Amino acid sequence: MSGLVLPIEPLTAGAFAPFGSVIEADPKTMRLINGGTTERFHALGKTEAAGEDARIVINIFRGQPRLFPYVVDMMERHPWGSQSFIPLDNRSWLAVVAQDEDGQPGRPRVFACSGRQGVHYGRNVWHHPLVAVGAVSDFLVVDREGSEHNLEEIFFETPFTIAASSLS
Amino acid sequence: MSGLVLPIEPLTAGAFAPFGSVIEADPKTMRLINGGTTERFHALGKTEAAGEDARIVINIFRGQPRLFPYVVDMMERHPWGSQSFIPLDNRSWLAVVAQDEDGQPGRPRVFACSGRQGVHYGRNVWHHPLVAVGAVSDFLVVDREGSEHNLEEIFFETPFTIAASSLS
Repeated sequence: MSGLVLPIEPLTAGAFAPFGSVIEADPKTMRLINGGTTERFHALGKTEAAGEDARIVINIFRGQPRLFPYVVDMMERHPWGSQSFIPLDNRSWLAVVAQDEDGQPGRPRVFACSGRQGVHYGRNVWHHPLVAVGAVSDFLVVDREGSEHNLEEIFFETPFTIAASSLS
Repeated sequence: MSGLVLPIEPLTAGAFAPFGSVIEADPKTMRLINGGTTERFHALGKTEAAGEDARIVINIFRGQPRLFPYVVDMMERHPWGSQSFIPLDNRSWLAVVAQDEDGQPGRPRVFACSGRQGVHYGRNVWHHPLVAVGAVSDFLVVDREGSEHNLEEIFFETPFTIAASSLS
């Protein structure tokens, strides 16, 4: 399965830029507020919610840990809004994304996120559903609610694999 | 200072309803997604962002712990949007809110939030800035960004107090 094994990359703002933004306490975004008692790391994710009656809602996702080697056999995207995942248990996890190639997801990229790193997937960015690792894990999820159909799913003819040995 | 000492109440959805909603994994809101691998606790906070160019942004607030007895001498509100706070360090904290009385905040109410409980302040709801307790604490904050002036502050002529002895 070597040709279809996906490497795991460290999550950095630069590497993730084609897909969205990293939600972490980046000193470059910091401003002091509340009389100096609070550091505000500002606008780490800029949400999008298209559609006349759409709005951004705040949810909690409680994910079962995935088993490895893990087979990536599908991706999804949300044409009408962005979606963010922020870990609430300080436990590492994986973000799996892909660039679009003529309406299909290209080869997936796998990012290792620390327990202090969330991600903001831009509107219509291909991604795999939540990949929790090691134990049941809670995530805060900020996404769009509205009346339009906001989910597109694609199954790969030849799936990809994330090897257990790639996890540190 | 007895007459102006504020009791600390447990945070429940019912008690907090006049001010917004509680962001926690409430089984009543749960639906299974992602092929049964994920429990989604849906729409725990429904954001509001008024103004033509406004949008919801995702931030991290890193709050210094407050010292007790703590003097509540002011409240603020955001006329153009809602604001949510979700703890990222699994550490208890306090949410301080008030109902409006002719454009002024009434007597504040203090809610003890667990490290697994966030809150969503409705648009234009009086609240005190972040009250972290015990140690420097990170919170995910979901609020509105836009060009209108979105902050109103009121200072009390006679401040209130949260007594150290009320913390458990």
